[in-house]
Amino acid sequence: MSSISDKIKEKPWLGWVLFLGTMGIVFVLGLFASEVTERRAEATVAYAPNREIDQFDPRNSVWGKAYPREYESWKATEDTTFKSKHMSSAREDMLEKNPNLVILWAGYGFSKEYNTPRGHYYAITDLQEIQRTGAPTGPNDGPMPSTCWTCKSPDVPRLMNEKGVAEFYKGKWASKGSEVVNPIGCGDCHDSKTMDLRISRPALIEGMKAMGKDINKATNQEMRSLVCAQCHVEYYFDGSDKSKGKYLTFPWKEGQTVEDMERYYDNLEFKDWTHKISRAPMLKAQHPGYEIYKMGIHGQRGVSCADCHMPYTSEGGVKFTDHQINSPLAKIDKSCQVCHREDAEELKSNVYANQDRVDDLKMRVEPLIVKAHYEAGKAWELGATEAEMKPILKLIRHAQWRWDYAVASHGASAHAPVEMTRVLGSSLDKAQEARMLLARLLATKGFIGEVEIPDISTKEKAQRAIGLDPDKMRETKDRFLKTLVPEWIKKAEERHSKLQPRVEGGDQIPHFEHDTEKI
Amino acid sequence: MSSISDKIKEKPWLGWVLFLGTMGIVFVLGLFASEVTERRAEATVAYAPNREIDQFDPRNSVWGKAYPREYESWKATEDTTFKSKHMSSAREDMLEKNPNLVILWAGYGFSKEYNTPRGHYYAITDLQEIQRTGAPTGPNDGPMPSTCWTCKSPDVPRLMNEKGVAEFYKGKWASKGSEVVNPIGCGDCHDSKTMDLRISRPALIEGMKAMGKDINKATNQEMRSLVCAQCHVEYYFDGSDKSKGKYLTFPWKEGQTVEDMERYYDNLEFKDWTHKISRAPMLKAQHPGYEIYKMGIHGQRGVSCADCHMPYTSEGGVKFTDHQINSPLAKIDKSCQVCHREDAEELKSNVYANQDRVDDLKMRVEPLIVKAHYEAGKAWELGATEAEMKPILKLIRHAQWRWDYAVASHGASAHAPVEMTRVLGSSLDKAQEARMLLARLLATKGFIGEVEIPDISTKEKAQRAIGLDPDKMRETKDRFLKTLVPEWIKKAEERHSKLQPRVEGGDQIPHFEHDTEKI
Repeated sequence: MSSISDKIKEKPWLGWVLFLGTMGIVFVLGLFASEVTERRAEATVAYAPNREIDQFDPRNSVWGKAYPREYESWKATEDTTFKSKHMSSAREDMLEKNPNLVILWAGYGFSKEYNTPRGHYYAITDLQEIQRTGAPTGPNDGPMPSTCWTCKSPDVPRLMNEKGVAEFYKGKWASKGSEVVNPIGCGDCHDSKTMDLRISRPALIEGMKAMGKDINKATNQEMRSLVCAQCHVEYYFDGSDKSKGKYLTFPWKEGQTVEDMERYYDNLEFKDWTHKISRAPMLKAQHPGYEIYKMGIHGQRGVSCADCHMPYTSEGGVKFTDHQINSPLAKIDKSCQVCHREDAEELKSNVYANQDRVDDLKMRVEPLIVKAHYEAGKAWELGATEAEMKPILKLIRHAQWRWDYAVASHGASAHAPVEMTRVLGSSLDKAQEARMLLARLLATKGFIGEVEIPDISTKEKAQRAIGLDPDKMRETKDRFLKTLVPEWIKKAEERHSKLQPRVEGGDQIPHFEHDTEKI
Repeated sequence: MSSISDKIKEKPWLGWVLFLGTMGIVFVLGLFASEVTERRAEATVAYAPNREIDQFDPRNSVWGKAYPREYESWKATEDTTFKSKHMSSAREDMLEKNPNLVILWAGYGFSKEYNTPRGHYYAITDLQEIQRTGAPTGPNDGPMPSTCWTCKSPDVPRLMNEKGVAEFYKGKWASKGSEVVNPIGCGDCHDSKTMDLRISRPALIEGMKAMGKDINKATNQEMRSLVCAQCHVEYYFDGSDKSKGKYLTFPWKEGQTVEDMERYYDNLEFKDWTHKISRAPMLKAQHPGYEIYKMGIHGQRGVSCADCHMPYTSEGGVKFTDHQINSPLAKIDKSCQVCHREDAEELKSNVYANQDRVDDLKMRVEPLIVKAHYEAGKAWELGATEAEMKPILKLIRHAQWRWDYAVASHGASAHAPVEMTRVLGSSLDKAQEARMLLARLLATKGFIGEVEIPDISTKEKAQRAIGLDPDKMRETKDRFLKTLVPEWIKKAEERHSKLQPRVEGGDQIPHFEHDTEKI
């Protein structure tokens, strides 16, 4: 210091330079401190809003006023531009791409329409528009039960709260068309007071209980998967107790592997439908995404659904969970690369390599099960008996169930590729075993050789081959969308307008999201 | 400081305490410095010995004088105590455990004997003792060609250097019994001057060239796998050019997937043998370990064979590569846990889970191919024609090739489990397709139903069912081991005794390792 003070004595202006310089630095530090404080304040506003929200207010936009970042990222599930090698978020017609599916599901709703999935934003619209829900003309008409709404909307916990669970499941799907109008959103997974994760669907609680597990003991990290497991699971409609309607049930009592659930359904002698061609008692796997994810390495390591599908992101200095739930491949930087320090393109190619392998077996199995159905049909035609057919139809049932289990939940070949190829291999085994037994049976009926299969090279040809009338389906669906659906929307708007806004500026909030331009 | 000097003025003895204390600390620091220097010196001796070793000296013990740690860890491959869920290093009789294998390989050497693999230390002993090499009575007798020695010993590059490659491959296996006596070791993979990794087998260089790759451009990390790929690969004996003997060839020209190699063999109309029951033109997959490893995630990430099977270890302050090549599960702490920060038991259970899945398909496929062989045999019996059988036999050939590709190299379900289940799934498809065609063909010959399979419930029963005489095989093998092998050893000892020891203390070195106590 002495040399500096000597210099100041020599040149007095140097003292002023030092003084002002120091002042400048202190001022800049002050600015930084202010910036940090401001960000903190913003975070406080973002995470602890003093707005009161009703737990059963089904309007995502109302919750969104308090949690704008989460709401806006949720709204981004409207975006359908993402496309990876094996999937698309743009509602592609899978039956057109692969008409074998029409035959596999002959006699069941899926043979009418089956698409790649769009985001949560479209949950209501897609269900109304799809041919599987038919074209009801009134509340007591149509092919599907009320239970079909269960996974589609925060109106569901509201209705369950108002009517009771069993009562909700009762009646036709169309009976609740004006009640269930807000697509999957905030209230499905969150507590409105604390924003804690919350289970709103009884089927998951009951499914866990059937396995001897108490969902109340789940950790926060487990809850980050369990809220998804309310819907992204295998389920069936248990109609055995009429007083409970078509009661949504998860077949987890024996466990969650493909063999466990197969055994469960076999023990109940449950079937989803009777196949139109083979007359086999069929099972439709829904989307056992949660069960399969748990068998893969990410599940084994305790990585949650949200870790990859809803990664942490930040905006304006606030860290929040991205609610644009979609493929992790759409946001590799925020999902995969948090743990995997590899190039994004390499990570993508690793996923694709496994998907290609699973796809290779899937493409082998499908035409074999199609053939098995037609060969069984031929055997019936030639006078085969119930007793002769029983073991064969059981093999067909198991083959298709296993195939469906492996392919029905779209992420399966990323979640647990080894298990999926194993399951598809066992499906193939059973399909071919059925076909070998059929070859022998057909020979005893005097038929040796390849059974003829009609032209099923397009969706329309395949649908006509199983007795569907695509023109009529289109026509009646259009009528439904132009008559009943607008009535439902009108009723819902009236109901919503009577609800307290409870949030300042509530008037500007749209009553609910609906993809109406298509109707 | 001033206060301390004040205190010293008060109490003079305090100065001495400080002085001696400081001396003590400096002394201890000196000790540490000495320790470090000593370790450095030891490392220098260990890594740059001034001992001259002949590149073609086949005696591992001679190299071992210069590299004691590597040699001693190599010698530890003598240890056969390691056992995991699906493998054992104790030469377990696989035909006894799974008599289906006897049928699958009927007409081929593997139906005589097939065991779990022991370590490199036993390379020579095991080849002499196994029934597949038969019981030669002299140099020009026995079932196998000289080529069978190629992967067994550093005597091989020595002989190839002396005689030329094609000349080495010529003649019967027994013709080189006294020449090839030192088990796989130092000279197989190392340059004796620099200890750099070195390719000693021409088949790998030629195989890479067939794929358009120059092995001279391999990185050091790639070489840490390529030295293993000299042997742990799929190969066949090309006998098309008589002047080259049974020339060891890797079928890599079309690529390394199961379909690529299948196409390669099909194009050549190559077969390893004709199946004794079905008369199908069969392929024996050897052990495509390298090819399969490259398709899995470790291979994709550039992890080398040595990284997991020969992890770095340290002893006496020296870091070296563990040459006790065995399952990474035998040293999870040094192999897996270098990258994977999970509990050893958890890592093991992850490997086992995938192995179990691959095993599930393997266990499905095997009995189906066995049945296909017998059903084809029945068709021949009932007068099926070559033309009728051709497509069926091709399916059987492909089914078994694919099964064998997936199971022949023991690490496959750890290296690339998704690819292995895929391959087994495709094997299953082809096996069952063959069986369905056979069911139809048999029906045209008047036979409908399940073809009878003889009692093959034990190794001995299965061997007798395919016309082998286990008693006679045992008897002739014993004679060979008691007469010809001791002669070979005697000749080899005489030759070794004439070699310059070139290493001080060479007299104490055993001439070569041999597991003679068994003979």
